[in-house]
Amino acid sequence: MSTTATNKQVIFRDYVSGFPKESDFEFTTTTVELKVPEGSNSVLVKNLYLSCDPYMRIRMGKPDPSTAALAQSYPVGQPIIGYGVSRVIESGHPDYKKGDLLWGFVGWEEYSVITPMPNNHFKIHHTDVPLSYYTGLLGMPGMTAYAGFYEVCSPKKGETVYVSAASGAVGQLVGQFAKMMGCYVVGSAGSKEKVDLLKTKFGFDDAFNYKEEQDLNAALKRCFPKGIDIYFENVGGKMLDAVLLNMNLHGRIAVCGMISQYNLQDQEGVHNLSSIIYKRIRIQGFVVSDFYDKYSKFLEFVVPCIKEGKITYVEDVAEGLEKGPEALVGLFHGKNVGKQVVVVARE
Amino acid sequence: MSTTATNKQVIFRDYVSGFPKESDFEFTTTTVELKVPEGSNSVLVKNLYLSCDPYMRIRMGKPDPSTAALAQSYPVGQPIIGYGVSRVIESGHPDYKKGDLLWGFVGWEEYSVITPMPNNHFKIHHTDVPLSYYTGLLGMPGMTAYAGFYEVCSPKKGETVYVSAASGAVGQLVGQFAKMMGCYVVGSAGSKEKVDLLKTKFGFDDAFNYKEEQDLNAALKRCFPKGIDIYFENVGGKMLDAVLLNMNLHGRIAVCGMISQYNLQDQEGVHNLSSIIYKRIRIQGFVVSDFYDKYSKFLEFVVPCIKEGKITYVEDVAEGLEKGPEALVGLFHGKNVGKQVVVVARE
Repeated sequence: MSTTATNKQVIFRDYVSGFPKESDFEFTTTTVELKVPEGSNSVLVKNLYLSCDPYMRIRMGKPDPSTAALAQSYPVGQPIIGYGVSRVIESGHPDYKKGDLLWGFVGWEEYSVITPMPNNHFKIHHTDVPLSYYTGLLGMPGMTAYAGFYEVCSPKKGETVYVSAASGAVGQLVGQFAKMMGCYVVGSAGSKEKVDLLKTKFGFDDAFNYKEEQDLNAALKRCFPKGIDIYFENVGGKMLDAVLLNMNLHGRIAVCGMISQYNLQDQEGVHNLSSIIYKRIRIQGFVVSDFYDKYSKFLEFVVPCIKEGKITYVEDVAEGLEKGPEALVGLFHGKNVGKQVVVVARE
Repeated sequence: MSTTATNKQVIFRDYVSGFPKESDFEFTTTTVELKVPEGSNSVLVKNLYLSCDPYMRIRMGKPDPSTAALAQSYPVGQPIIGYGVSRVIESGHPDYKKGDLLWGFVGWEEYSVITPMPNNHFKIHHTDVPLSYYTGLLGMPGMTAYAGFYEVCSPKKGETVYVSAASGAVGQLVGQFAKMMGCYVVGSAGSKEKVDLLKTKFGFDDAFNYKEEQDLNAALKRCFPKGIDIYFENVGGKMLDAVLLNMNLHGRIAVCGMISQYNLQDQEGVHNLSSIIYKRIRIQGFVVSDFYDKYSKFLEFVVPCIKEGKITYVEDVAEGLEKGPEALVGLFHGKNVGKQVVVVARE
């Protein structure tokens, strides 16, 4: 005899164009059997934390061959999918047993049945840190910052580093990694509160509110009188154009995301690409999944940093799955301060 | 008692905006002493061939900090400067003696006094090939193709390679290098004659006339049904935008030049940069001068290829310094078929 539970879900109503709205999602409640089918290798998990990440906007668009290499569109009428932290309730999979914790792709719902896959699901071993960190600092965004900065940017001590969307899950870490390496680090964000956070909490050398700058080129010239060696790109569009004018010879641009473009019907044009030649710039797009072979090395590095207080981490926590759509939508308006997390259950 | 000679020169009249015109240059004739000053390390050369290269447009613009890293503006009222092949008449420099041949930066004039500098001037040792080749295949453009393809594109056998401005000095060589490596190579150019040349003479697998295509994206999809692994970028603008839509995962774009943009007051916007993330594209700007340490290795590779007929090379030859401005201006309208050379003297 199997037990059942109610399972609240956040359903994707239809493909999104423009900015996502709360009405693009709806709630439904189903029933879930609290066991896995006999002979299956799937795992039933109870979701504890869900992650709001910019790439999810790409999955909300219509199926598109140009983005398919990165992410498939969400199926309409199904729960949306994202990174989460979950507790194993029942398991048919040899790597997981009841009571284990994992992080990786789950549905936006209270319980999910998943088939664990390498690079999609990771067992959690360090539990003496806040579990929600596995949606950010210790999960995909943290690994993104680590691989993007150390593997893609080719940083050297003393170089100048600019991070856009700098108070976000990835940006706040890139800035701190760059400071640890002895770089001069400037970040931009979209409010005074976030700019203050960058300077007082995350140790950026300087920061500015891009919404208050008439001229991004002038803002960058002011912050980088000697030019930019490394740009960690999270936003795209006008910001990239201004950065190109301020890059130094042999500068590197790691393209992690372009959140300013995801909600536009027509992408902004970038005009200063000739700088790529004039300054021998390298622009490298990257996706964290290409670097998960370094995940355990990353944890060895970052967990002690957290415990020793060398790395600070700020979360913006929405309480309850019913707050999920609002939190997710808010991400694209920069409403979150720090990593946006949704708590489904604190156990 | 020293001998003198008349010295016809092509003078840069004023900074250029838009397309250069013949009237941006004027001829003057001065007198040159056919010796070098006592105790000087300079070299008096007789110029034989001059090279017309796209980057020269950048030097015709007003001084601009954004391009200064690549090239300084031409001084107004002075002869323009470019790559040339020259015979040493007198030398105060220990590395050069009377009768030597060299290639490198000289004035657009019959005689120049130069101070040889590493990476700016190279002594010619192989003289059993046409000397004019040192303005192209065996000079800066050849080295550009070699370094750009082998060092920047990270090519692998079987990959698909797209070359724009493919019949030009650099493009025709990139295509042939790529074929030698076992790649599938497609080129574009701006006339039927050039397209025929690509297919019949240089061995490209396919080629198209970009001026006759309504839709560059569709043209690239037709030529690359499986996508583009490597793009050798010579033109920029709309072409780059179309290429970005057709790049494969982990594709590489070597940015050698953006000739379509050099004559524009306002650079075209490129809209499809999000592909950099979706496909983890690497875009790398490069300048040949960063690779001249490999020049002798390049010659060891390429000179036998020429002698064995493995590499073909097409020049468009303008006879006489007085034809220089017309030839140079024509380059920016794609009038040349193959490498544009100006013969100053055949000795």
